[in-house]
Amino acid sequence: MENNNIELLIPELRPEVGLRLQKITTLMDEAGMDAMLLASNANVFYMAGRFFRGYIYMEKSGKMVYFLIRPNCFNVNGKDVVEIRKPEMIPAELTRLGFAAPAAFGLELDTLSYSEVQRLGKLYPDATICNASDVMRKARMTKTPYEIRLMREDGEHQMAAYSRITGLYKRDMTDVELQVEIERVLRLEGNLGFLRTSGNLMEINLGSVISGDNADAPSPYDFAMGGAGVSPALPCGACGDILKPGQTVMVDMNGCFNGWQTDMTRVWTIGEVDQLARDAHECSRRILRELEKIAVPGVEVRELYDRAHAIVEEEGLEQYFMGHRQQAAFIGHGVGIELNEAPPITPRNRVRLEADMTLAIEPKFVIPGVGAVGVENTYVVTPGGLQNLTPFPEELTDLL
Amino acid sequence: MENNNIELLIPELRPEVGLRLQKITTLMDEAGMDAMLLASNANVFYMAGRFFRGYIYMEKSGKMVYFLIRPNCFNVNGKDVVEIRKPEMIPAELTRLGFAAPAAFGLELDTLSYSEVQRLGKLYPDATICNASDVMRKARMTKTPYEIRLMREDGEHQMAAYSRITGLYKRDMTDVELQVEIERVLRLEGNLGFLRTSGNLMEINLGSVISGDNADAPSPYDFAMGGAGVSPALPCGACGDILKPGQTVMVDMNGCFNGWQTDMTRVWTIGEVDQLARDAHECSRRILRELEKIAVPGVEVRELYDRAHAIVEEEGLEQYFMGHRQQAAFIGHGVGIELNEAPPITPRNRVRLEADMTLAIEPKFVIPGVGAVGVENTYVVTPGGLQNLTPFPEELTDLL
Repeated sequence: MENNNIELLIPELRPEVGLRLQKITTLMDEAGMDAMLLASNANVFYMAGRFFRGYIYMEKSGKMVYFLIRPNCFNVNGKDVVEIRKPEMIPAELTRLGFAAPAAFGLELDTLSYSEVQRLGKLYPDATICNASDVMRKARMTKTPYEIRLMREDGEHQMAAYSRITGLYKRDMTDVELQVEIERVLRLEGNLGFLRTSGNLMEINLGSVISGDNADAPSPYDFAMGGAGVSPALPCGACGDILKPGQTVMVDMNGCFNGWQTDMTRVWTIGEVDQLARDAHECSRRILRELEKIAVPGVEVRELYDRAHAIVEEEGLEQYFMGHRQQAAFIGHGVGIELNEAPPITPRNRVRLEADMTLAIEPKFVIPGVGAVGVENTYVVTPGGLQNLTPFPEELTDLL
Repeated sequence: MENNNIELLIPELRPEVGLRLQKITTLMDEAGMDAMLLASNANVFYMAGRFFRGYIYMEKSGKMVYFLIRPNCFNVNGKDVVEIRKPEMIPAELTRLGFAAPAAFGLELDTLSYSEVQRLGKLYPDATICNASDVMRKARMTKTPYEIRLMREDGEHQMAAYSRITGLYKRDMTDVELQVEIERVLRLEGNLGFLRTSGNLMEINLGSVISGDNADAPSPYDFAMGGAGVSPALPCGACGDILKPGQTVMVDMNGCFNGWQTDMTRVWTIGEVDQLARDAHECSRRILRELEKIAVPGVEVRELYDRAHAIVEEEGLEQYFMGHRQQAAFIGHGVGIELNEAPPITPRNRVRLEADMTLAIEPKFVIPGVGAVGVENTYVVTPGGLQNLTPFPEELTDLL
């Protein structure tokens, strides 16, 4: 049982962390930052391959120290691991290791609480505080081959779980009951049952199953679709209504199996549904086929939105696009360790696509009285266009 | 489908929010705060009975305004509801409504990100910024009769789900497989499938099922017990090991059904287990019986810890108490909208118990090679001692 003297980084991760560090230090240099201290869960996991209680100090030079708060519960060590009782011990340890005090010191201002930034800012009271969140958001926007492999594995598990959805339906089931059975097959497939998101507008359980009128119920959160939920404590997603013939059932459930995530939506039908819903679903697929071709490195993100919107206009479906009572000017987002990473795919985002970005693209429609339709896939940007990490049949599938 | 002109607060909540506001304004006065602006999800839900996208402004006088960010997705209104596009519009709206600018302005410094506090702080650049997190933490520490009723309902649902656990076990099942079946019965019982916690050291899926050696695997999070988890991305809880005869199975799964939560742990056995584990389990129950008597208003929280520890010493079980390889100096915590509320029950906490505090008390033991034992109940503090919101059989129950 005792695991003394194991390395913090598993050997496989040494070169991997090197690649990530290279991206980060380049961005730190551009941002005029001398060093930064990471403390947020997602970034600690990103730079260590595991979540631990502590901090990661990185210098623009590429030198890095892992500070583990005692008790060092993993019993890990390594040449770049230092145990501390509290963050106030960090500057003395860094001096001992030959580091100079930073003049421009980065902290994750968009993620850490005000109180925590105040505390960590005092480590270098003479330094200018910079925003490490920006740097990390940009660095994590493109993925390494190792990360893409993990996301591809996620996609395979998510598809395996989705392939069992048709068999889970029973007549007169509620949306919540169907969701619970989907959660079960996801979890048995290895889903961690936990969804890492960024910001406070992304509260949800393991995902969204919306159907009928509930697809048109607006939600205060930042998800593509709404749904009333079953409680004012968590107003999104399935609402407890019985699934009825003539409705669509949109399934947008979590794809986190190894710490990275894929995001994937498919739609089932309860018997025959209105032709408008079928047409809108095909329009979503047409948009994806088009974006798969045009989304190459160098293209501005907003061009993806514009092209999608042009197709929607051509088909006269604007009033149903990305919601009906409440519409979102958005068709997708970056995805990785967190469900909502950069870049968001919005009409004004001039960020340019880069190779190895991973994007969840979800052109969806809400058809009143029927439900939501559309497809979401997670893609990798390549010079030849988008590569699909969730290649699962996209057609509407009947549950009856 | 159109819900125009509904009130933000359901009528039942009007007097309820009044009670909560009274506690808050008293604490604001003590803290020398003129007004505060709440923006965190838990506190918005607490003061509105629903989560919405926006802010709540409260003056020491008890005057309050709900600021809803457009689109006002719930179509709600009311005399104290104002729609805005962005928080920068708040000061002008407040002036229009006759409010004076605050000299001491509270923001949730422990919850909101540094960037968000910076933005909101600029609303009143001449004001002194105070910490609204402290005030809200204290106000929420005691519960109103309405909240206690909701927590009692949570407890009933959680107990109903736990009563089905024995029937879920199948021979050679893994801990994860058992947890997934428990998640399913919890969800079908109405569990929201979402766990609101405070701080960044509380990541978990729907709870913890630990058994055998895995109970002794330390975790970097702030939960009472550890467990390796199945991924370095989420190192806590069930690890995927097959449940074996001679082991205990500790079940500490989520009890959130209506936005409030109960926290409850029970232990099952796989056939005969070591007498030491049985003794330690009875010691936990003895501690709870004792604390149920002595925990009355006025008692310092640390006295609960000390009394528990004295009983553990008397029985010679110190080396197994609250962990074995890694021990926590802690036996419980406040619970409510968030799983980990104030006060933590630690050796040094001199906070005095008050009537209507709700506490999860969890004296637990880790027995190497066997697993974890002990009971956790959620209680309300009353002048006559603790009232149990989770009165479910506490004996070890055999799964074989």
